[in-house]
Amino acid sequence: MSFAVAEIQPLNKEMGQTVREYIDTLTKPPGSLGRLEEMAIQLAEITSEAFPVVSPPGVIVFAADHGVVEEGVSAFPQEVTVQMVMNFLNRGAAINVFSRQIGAAFEVVDIGVAADIEAGGVVKRKIRYGTANFCKQDALKREEVEKAISVGYERAENMIQQGSKCLILGEMGIGNTTPSSAILAVLSGQDVSVLVGQGTGITSEKIIHKQEVITLALKERKPNRNDPIDILTKVGGLEIAGMTGAMLAGAVNRVPILVDGFICTISALLAKEICSAASDYMIACHRSVEPGHKIALQLLGKKPILDLDMRLGEGSGAAVAFPILQSATLMLKEMATFTSAGISK
Amino acid sequence: MSFAVAEIQPLNKEMGQTVREYIDTLTKPPGSLGRLEEMAIQLAEITSEAFPVVSPPGVIVFAADHGVVEEGVSAFPQEVTVQMVMNFLNRGAAINVFSRQIGAAFEVVDIGVAADIEAGGVVKRKIRYGTANFCKQDALKREEVEKAISVGYERAENMIQQGSKCLILGEMGIGNTTPSSAILAVLSGQDVSVLVGQGTGITSEKIIHKQEVITLALKERKPNRNDPIDILTKVGGLEIAGMTGAMLAGAVNRVPILVDGFICTISALLAKEICSAASDYMIACHRSVEPGHKIALQLLGKKPILDLDMRLGEGSGAAVAFPILQSATLMLKEMATFTSAGISK
Repeated sequence: MSFAVAEIQPLNKEMGQTVREYIDTLTKPPGSLGRLEEMAIQLAEITSEAFPVVSPPGVIVFAADHGVVEEGVSAFPQEVTVQMVMNFLNRGAAINVFSRQIGAAFEVVDIGVAADIEAGGVVKRKIRYGTANFCKQDALKREEVEKAISVGYERAENMIQQGSKCLILGEMGIGNTTPSSAILAVLSGQDVSVLVGQGTGITSEKIIHKQEVITLALKERKPNRNDPIDILTKVGGLEIAGMTGAMLAGAVNRVPILVDGFICTISALLAKEICSAASDYMIACHRSVEPGHKIALQLLGKKPILDLDMRLGEGSGAAVAFPILQSATLMLKEMATFTSAGISK
Repeated sequence: MSFAVAEIQPLNKEMGQTVREYIDTLTKPPGSLGRLEEMAIQLAEITSEAFPVVSPPGVIVFAADHGVVEEGVSAFPQEVTVQMVMNFLNRGAAINVFSRQIGAAFEVVDIGVAADIEAGGVVKRKIRYGTANFCKQDALKREEVEKAISVGYERAENMIQQGSKCLILGEMGIGNTTPSSAILAVLSGQDVSVLVGQGTGITSEKIIHKQEVITLALKERKPNRNDPIDILTKVGGLEIAGMTGAMLAGAVNRVPILVDGFICTISALLAKEICSAASDYMIACHRSVEPGHKIALQLLGKKPILDLDMRLGEGSGAAVAFPILQSATLMLKEMATFTSAGISK
């Protein structure tokens, strides 16, 4: 690939230790801010800053379509992908609302929507008009996967250069819980039946059909467990690959990566497969209702910040969790110490 | 009591139903924002507004001391209460940092600190210099409890009149997990051993001592389970009663009450005992590490928003959770509908 993932450095554990000791001088009982303290330490290790900053955040939503929707795996028709891209551009979607709330820079990237989008404002990086139906052939070509990862990498680097202090990656792609579940089945070795849920709202009958579609695809495509690019080629998606690339850029640049729900966590697992140090730069933001998410988070080795029964995607759960990370950084920066406040320890 | 708690109206369930139906017209799969949707509905029921607003919030911290600290139940000396009040006034405590983050009005009320506080900025409503040691005599007189509830009620009404759209109640009082655990033992009927934890950081040996102190006090004082004023008189605290009064004011004025951790939840239970409709106006914001909190939340019938291993008090957990409630209100107010965005359902 064109970018050097070997550049991902280990966390700055020394800075983490400095911050850990500093937190115990703040005017509160030791440990009493719980996971906020752990977040502050991780952010210090990621950024190498004693007083890390996460604001302003940068939100990038990658949109793409999926050939497998012709198998009837989704509650919504494919045209909704492009309609939702228009909704993003008109600032009416959930991620727009939450991005405004947290003062985030926002962009939406057409990395593979199955229709032309003429509207202004969309970042045009279409690699192809959606993936192929992976029940019948490989979803993508290997070079398309590599290109999608590069696009994600480029957009994240641009966002960072424009001043974003953390990355929130989101996706829009009707049907994309299906490739995500297929990828998770490969990476986890778990049976499809324990991974697949209702996505954005299909019936139990459709869930069984979705499981059969994935089982068939895995049997036909035979992705190589040890080659993340091969997995994306056989059963992946362009927005999934794009988010993976964006996460690698975050890790290379020591910028915290806020991991959203199920699909985003699949991208995170693929980034970790490409370079295991990448996951050190990630913070799991929420636990999705999608059953596979629990298994994906276990594989990633992360405990999410929020557990609010959300399952929307778009990066919405990460955006809603963002203020808590900001609280962690403000705790560090603004709280008095026992000494400065003259308080008995 | 001087205020009419009978004025607490039932929730506006009709408005809740209107908002529930409206949420399903927003551009997202039905139910996909999970508990954010439930929060939006509850806020509509509380405020009787189709587009409820929670910003700006108002934070009131009640500070008071506890005679029972002479039994050695706390990790910190009593003088820390007044030192922390000074820290609040100098804007260096955790609750100050989080109040600034969320744009909250802030005040600290001396409702019973065991020392004179000459500094400007504190709201002076001292009822007495701390409670009596309830191992030896009743913590308070009945009229002192009623006065403390009235003070809380008055401060909350003032905060609401000044424009606060929701209430965050916090407390500072060295030793106050001990009276809180005693109150919970009375209300829950559970054994003290399952309710009492490390507070702000005592050793296992001290936990056993704290349990013995509470068991002795309950045996000697015999609070009447069915009289919340009697419970506060025998084993209560002035800041606990103050928060109870503030919550009653929130409920009377249809203003959402953000319930913080263990001690705040005890005040919430007492408010519910005084008028059971009061709890309809409450939102549990976080789950404390303190073991009794789980039982207190069950009695209150609430599931908290956050579970981040926090145990600081001061209202800090509620302030950290506030942006999530704001997200719920912004979802309602700012998201496009399927019709307005022209999206296929």
